[in-house]
Amino acid sequence: MALLESRRMRSPDWIEPLLPHAARLIDQPLAALLEDDPARLQRDVLEVGPITACFRRQRIDAQAWQALYELAERCSMPQAIEAMFRGDAINASEQRPALHVALRSELEEGAAAAACAEVRAAEPRIRALAESLRSSGVTDVVHVGIGGSDLGPRLLAAALGTQQPAFRMHFMSSPDGHALQQLIARLQPERTAVVLVSKSFSTEETRLNGRLLLDWLQAPERVYAISANVPAAEQFGVPAAHVMPMWDWVGGRYSLWSAVGFSVRAAFGETAFAELLRGAAEMDRHFRLAPVHDNLPIRHALVAIWNRNAMGYASQAVLPYDLRLGLLPDYLQQLVMESLGKSALADGSGTAAFATVPVVWGGPGTDCQHSYFQALHQATETMPCEFIGVIRPDHPHAAMHLSLWSNLLAQGEALALGSASADLHRHYPGSRPSSVFMLDQLDAHALGALLAMYEHSVYAQSVVWGINAFDQWGVELGKKTAHRLAPALRGEQIAADPISADLVHRWRARAGD
Amino acid sequence: MALLESRRMRSPDWIEPLLPHAARLIDQPLAALLEDDPARLQRDVLEVGPITACFRRQRIDAQAWQALYELAERCSMPQAIEAMFRGDAINASEQRPALHVALRSELEEGAAAAACAEVRAAEPRIRALAESLRSSGVTDVVHVGIGGSDLGPRLLAAALGTQQPAFRMHFMSSPDGHALQQLIARLQPERTAVVLVSKSFSTEETRLNGRLLLDWLQAPERVYAISANVPAAEQFGVPAAHVMPMWDWVGGRYSLWSAVGFSVRAAFGETAFAELLRGAAEMDRHFRLAPVHDNLPIRHALVAIWNRNAMGYASQAVLPYDLRLGLLPDYLQQLVMESLGKSALADGSGTAAFATVPVVWGGPGTDCQHSYFQALHQATETMPCEFIGVIRPDHPHAAMHLSLWSNLLAQGEALALGSASADLHRHYPGSRPSSVFMLDQLDAHALGALLAMYEHSVYAQSVVWGINAFDQWGVELGKKTAHRLAPALRGEQIAADPISADLVHRWRARAGD
Repeated sequence: MALLESRRMRSPDWIEPLLPHAARLIDQPLAALLEDDPARLQRDVLEVGPITACFRRQRIDAQAWQALYELAERCSMPQAIEAMFRGDAINASEQRPALHVALRSELEEGAAAAACAEVRAAEPRIRALAESLRSSGVTDVVHVGIGGSDLGPRLLAAALGTQQPAFRMHFMSSPDGHALQQLIARLQPERTAVVLVSKSFSTEETRLNGRLLLDWLQAPERVYAISANVPAAEQFGVPAAHVMPMWDWVGGRYSLWSAVGFSVRAAFGETAFAELLRGAAEMDRHFRLAPVHDNLPIRHALVAIWNRNAMGYASQAVLPYDLRLGLLPDYLQQLVMESLGKSALADGSGTAAFATVPVVWGGPGTDCQHSYFQALHQATETMPCEFIGVIRPDHPHAAMHLSLWSNLLAQGEALALGSASADLHRHYPGSRPSSVFMLDQLDAHALGALLAMYEHSVYAQSVVWGINAFDQWGVELGKKTAHRLAPALRGEQIAADPISADLVHRWRARAGD
Repeated sequence: MALLESRRMRSPDWIEPLLPHAARLIDQPLAALLEDDPARLQRDVLEVGPITACFRRQRIDAQAWQALYELAERCSMPQAIEAMFRGDAINASEQRPALHVALRSELEEGAAAAACAEVRAAEPRIRALAESLRSSGVTDVVHVGIGGSDLGPRLLAAALGTQQPAFRMHFMSSPDGHALQQLIARLQPERTAVVLVSKSFSTEETRLNGRLLLDWLQAPERVYAISANVPAAEQFGVPAAHVMPMWDWVGGRYSLWSAVGFSVRAAFGETAFAELLRGAAEMDRHFRLAPVHDNLPIRHALVAIWNRNAMGYASQAVLPYDLRLGLLPDYLQQLVMESLGKSALADGSGTAAFATVPVVWGGPGTDCQHSYFQALHQATETMPCEFIGVIRPDHPHAAMHLSLWSNLLAQGEALALGSASADLHRHYPGSRPSSVFMLDQLDAHALGALLAMYEHSVYAQSVVWGINAFDQWGVELGKKTAHRLAPALRGEQIAADPISADLVHRWRARAGD
């Protein structure tokens, strides 16, 4: 696997100290490793607020952990963390700070203090708008946004769905007329509000969906926008008093804590949104203060680095055993892959000579067990897993809840230990690593802590790799190419790549144009 | 990437002839390769029924294709295909045929003829039940099943959703009381029917969800089951006259063509279901009769083999640019990964000394562009893509449709050609392969053809690898372990792995037990 591609990679200096440990561990059965190392029972479990995290079934022993801690040290992890919380321009390619933490933690230094002041200043108006939408009597709110303006609020709405929202929430992202038509058919315009989220207010998808929705709604007084471009929002038909701010020091995929979460805030109320922020702020404090070996986001990041660069695993499965967290894999696909799916080193010194982001994928259990778990247990390639469960359910069906949990816990054990059989079809090689995250319950507080943990892990990984977790230059070329190709689909002659030109030709022939 | 793991793999004989071509092509810019080879414009596009498939942006030239055709020859692909359509016991580990094709094609040989006769015999009753449910006046149908009893019908319901179903459809799969409660809160029992799908009727998830739903419904006359175990279904409370058959020669993930598709058949009507089967039957005929170089499923399979075993790519992204096909990546995760996520060779001779299934993942466009496309364009690892679009929409919003398509076509071009820049953050290396599938429209006929194409590609891949695409022994250990652990969660003392035991202990402490 990756036979040919691997030769194009060189190991950089920072990987070298990990390699002897990797060589020692890679062929050792995980079952034996666990047996020989009872200390991992204490060492590799962390309890932080509402989260219990178990890294014991990773292929990492005490010495390897030590090498990983030294790696964090060598990368000046504590300094890098402080640089973020101080508001240094850690988003170097855009010469900006990355200050999503200022949306939930009180910070007193440098640019961070200024950001907190901006947040405080904007807060009363956002709160008043959220409360007025909440009590307005609308039955349905359509949130229009895409990518970072969509996945966070969508995840929150689903995760908190059992907690009595004030109205039904709907999301429009891709410019797909089928979805729009199906949605409109179910809603009454006079009882619906629309929330448009776009930092630049130039996002094509949001403008397309927004235009049709506003024409259908015919009620500017029930339209809200979150944007850094107030004039564009006004021109689009949003009352100026309904435009809430976005700041250039918050990236889309880190923005659910801001006014981007407005519709969710209105749906679930001020208390829930404050709890969300409080859960995240507690994780912020933990990330800043806890020593490396007790630091949950850093431990999580080091496992990811180990699995990617020492073990060579190409993917990471995210497996929530709670349907309310069914969108977590999608959310993390964006958070992790858009942040870490890069090759350029942040300091401009060149290109990563090591593998960066794996494929992040997954889906809810137990569905996944009846789908791709065959491959997790018996495929030729190891695909590490992360199991997430909620200990106290918000329903009374105990048998179902026990079934979910017995399955969640069983999979990690079965993947690690395997089961030998002379019949190769019934042979489970085991030695497949996984982590477990147990949340006490699925409320806004726990969710805030969980999402902040993932954000900080992503940042810690970016520090080890020396890449910028906060830009996304890689999405520009596709947009530019789409704008160039669009006239061809309408029948205009353009200079195009021969393959694209021929596809357009066939498309038009089949479309009956 | 995969630095350490790769050394445990040896190349088997069949890969050897591919390697010189791989070595020649791996470092060549895809842009140059496309330019030097104008023949690929004709050679690497196939039009089969409602599907136009474009493989031109794969890293495969004329000589490599020739080597792949010879590989198919050497694996006796035509004979393997005939063995399936004849009903030979190609599911060797279970000593059964794999005869999903008998559900839609008229077959006249061997076990296949007998299966067709069984299908014909059962058909009038299934049709009558579907018609009676369709015209019964129920407003909602809850389909209960998991894995192969869930994803196919769920995909069909979403894909055909714009075509006026006779009732709303809902799906329950995981044993998650939150989902069940939210569903029940929205439905009226007197206007709802329940359809239970489980081959053995012992699937724990389906029994848990089914029991609560039947207790809520209190109307056996509106309960249907699809199962091979009629007595168990009856004992569960399903009238015998409402139990429809499943056969041991159809695997769950290949079963949507059977009575497993019952609720979809009732929702969309006999004509739509017949069209679905006709689309698949046409693809069956094409798979049997077309020569290798014109054979769409075989070409698709050879691309997959090439990308996995010659290029070493660890994943395959599936990217439908139509929200109605939003579940296609999930459906294919199961179809591909449960079928091909194996190591045991079917002939019992040992274990695959080469990589089998990649991670199949993805999601709808253009959402994906605002999420993980950053990584597709600029990450260190190549992640091949498959774009799927629908040429003629079922809505009048032309600007949206053009936006979707200009984006779809642009991404393949941008990934392949890249764009050089001295600023590494703005540098796109290109040379990232992709395929495009254009469907004329999204009706039952096109959908049948598309899904049958994927089924046959999976079979063709399994023939090259010499593994059994139709068993799933890998899912048994997890189930067994879950049954063993369940009593511990209820507080009983059991002998358990120390890590599981400690997790259970912490779980119970946090649960407040």
